[in-house]
Amino acid sequence: MRIILDGMGGDHAPAEMVKGAAIASKLIEHEICIVGDEGKIKRELAKNDHEPKNISILHASEVITNEDKPVKAIRAKKDSSLVKGLMLVKNGEGDMLLSAGNSGAIMTGGLLLLGRIAGIERPALGSAYPILNRGTVALLIDAGANSECKAVNLLHFAAMGSIYMEKVMGVRNPAVGLVNMGTEPGKGSNALKEAHGLLSEAKNAGINFVGNIEGRDVPLGAADVIVCDGMVGNVILKLTEGLGFSIMGMLTQMFTSSTGAKIGALFLLPKLKALKAAFDYTEYGGAPILGISHPVIKIHGASNANAVMNGILKSVPFVENGVIAQIEDAVRKMDVIRAGAERPEAEQDV
Amino acid sequence: MRIILDGMGGDHAPAEMVKGAAIASKLIEHEICIVGDEGKIKRELAKNDHEPKNISILHASEVITNEDKPVKAIRAKKDSSLVKGLMLVKNGEGDMLLSAGNSGAIMTGGLLLLGRIAGIERPALGSAYPILNRGTVALLIDAGANSECKAVNLLHFAAMGSIYMEKVMGVRNPAVGLVNMGTEPGKGSNALKEAHGLLSEAKNAGINFVGNIEGRDVPLGAADVIVCDGMVGNVILKLTEGLGFSIMGMLTQMFTSSTGAKIGALFLLPKLKALKAAFDYTEYGGAPILGISHPVIKIHGASNANAVMNGILKSVPFVENGVIAQIEDAVRKMDVIRAGAERPEAEQDV
Repeated sequence: MRIILDGMGGDHAPAEMVKGAAIASKLIEHEICIVGDEGKIKRELAKNDHEPKNISILHASEVITNEDKPVKAIRAKKDSSLVKGLMLVKNGEGDMLLSAGNSGAIMTGGLLLLGRIAGIERPALGSAYPILNRGTVALLIDAGANSECKAVNLLHFAAMGSIYMEKVMGVRNPAVGLVNMGTEPGKGSNALKEAHGLLSEAKNAGINFVGNIEGRDVPLGAADVIVCDGMVGNVILKLTEGLGFSIMGMLTQMFTSSTGAKIGALFLLPKLKALKAAFDYTEYGGAPILGISHPVIKIHGASNANAVMNGILKSVPFVENGVIAQIEDAVRKMDVIRAGAERPEAEQDV
Repeated sequence: MRIILDGMGGDHAPAEMVKGAAIASKLIEHEICIVGDEGKIKRELAKNDHEPKNISILHASEVITNEDKPVKAIRAKKDSSLVKGLMLVKNGEGDMLLSAGNSGAIMTGGLLLLGRIAGIERPALGSAYPILNRGTVALLIDAGANSECKAVNLLHFAAMGSIYMEKVMGVRNPAVGLVNMGTEPGKGSNALKEAHGLLSEAKNAGINFVGNIEGRDVPLGAADVIVCDGMVGNVILKLTEGLGFSIMGMLTQMFTSSTGAKIGALFLLPKLKALKAAFDYTEYGGAPILGISHPVIKIHGASNANAVMNGILKSVPFVENGVIAQIEDAVRKMDVIRAGAERPEAEQDV
């Protein structure tokens, strides 16, 4: 397979992009095609130990920045690394795209150039969410692509997230939870109530729906697939980040506040580093954009080589285990469930 | 003034309710009227040192439990401690009500028996939110009463929250932030975009609006008044609780994982207790229900005497500093702002 890497997206591009690709080139036997400024990429590549037969470069003269307006940028910057990368995937010359660039542009580019999976109205951004007490990760979907969602969107997020967790992250029969303000089925907005009904039906189609989950259950690992609209998902992700930062700051302050505390800290430092690492996005291999007709992974904008490498490694099962085909199949199953849910009750009793 | 305390609401009623009232009776020169089972309350009172002239008891034979349906319970249980307490406030025989009971019943009882402040369509639950790095608290509003909100509801939450933070919590010119998925004014749902516009206008009416805030800014103290709909507010509160619990659990595990770590922990234990205390709701004096025509404070269901006492102490400025009258005044100012916002742009330019 051929993995397309946007060499110019992200805060530390192209250096960390190329370095990540170089490391990955020695770990997997697939072609990694880096798209971007050929001269710069070649210079970076020369600095890093890599497997030449697994790396290729495609020159692109333009870069889409974080300041660019997504729709305008995708239409105007035809020779950008992102647009050229997406076109390779569209034309069958690449199996998937990874980019640490402008999130809006990646989503828009995916929609405009690759298109949606038939039946999926709203593609979503899935993001790894750390479950501290288990040392595992869950998938939060949607992490911020759609501020408001209908019940059917949430149903699709659940199906797509389940497939990703099973096929890419290797979680068997992943538990799906719907974020709500209470565990009872009748809680929350009309969209959430309806989604609870659809997801309950979807158990018959293989979705392991465990019901509504509350905010307090999310970090404790109540679900492997955390389903919510993009507003709630964005708040969950960023609040977790802010609280982690805030608590780490307080701990550091504590540990340096007196000589006794400093001595205590010496013993605990390795353990604290483990806690900090649990909050480290670079370990998780990026965020899949699910619902697009081809595999696309958004890597964190601040990604270092480690994050890029992990994203590339996750690309392999994303493509090889047929995630897109499985989602296409799931959409058809979900359509049957929706049709059933729409029948009047009297008819269902017959 | 006369503070009405629901003696029978909460997981530890009446014992902790009465104990909290007993402690408070020695700290403030106001009457605390405990409503509930007279025999039980008298027995509990006898166990606790208190100032008799500051405590009275009103017998109520029924109790609304957490299992009761709010509307039905308020209508059917006329002799419950909650309904009798609310009726005292309605009839001018009490200045405010505190209860640790069924949240839905308190909100419903407030709406049905006391009524809304004119112009407020949706009363909201305000909850203290700990700002760890500063050792202060912010007010999160709405903490879960309204799952979906219109822009005008959010505007009212901002106005009511500002008044509460200033008059009860003593924060001068409190900073108001609107929780959104990005800081730019154009982010989020239509309701959030419209709310951003209204709140920007409301700066002229004395609301210190600092703009959109993201999830990561919330625990770092970007705003003293954190404005959001009840779904997002509920997720913020409960996720914070869950993460605090999860991180504390990991730290405890770390600190007992080896002899060295145990020695280290000895030095750090007092500091950790301080961090744990920051997550402790009992210090914050309960959650005001704002938008009801009389002061009502909901105390946490698991409240101990300390939480009850703090709730009673916060009642004094809530009543004495005229929070309700100030909200009535603010609603009129907000109406003017909304009328201005609805005028077409051309007219505004004249």
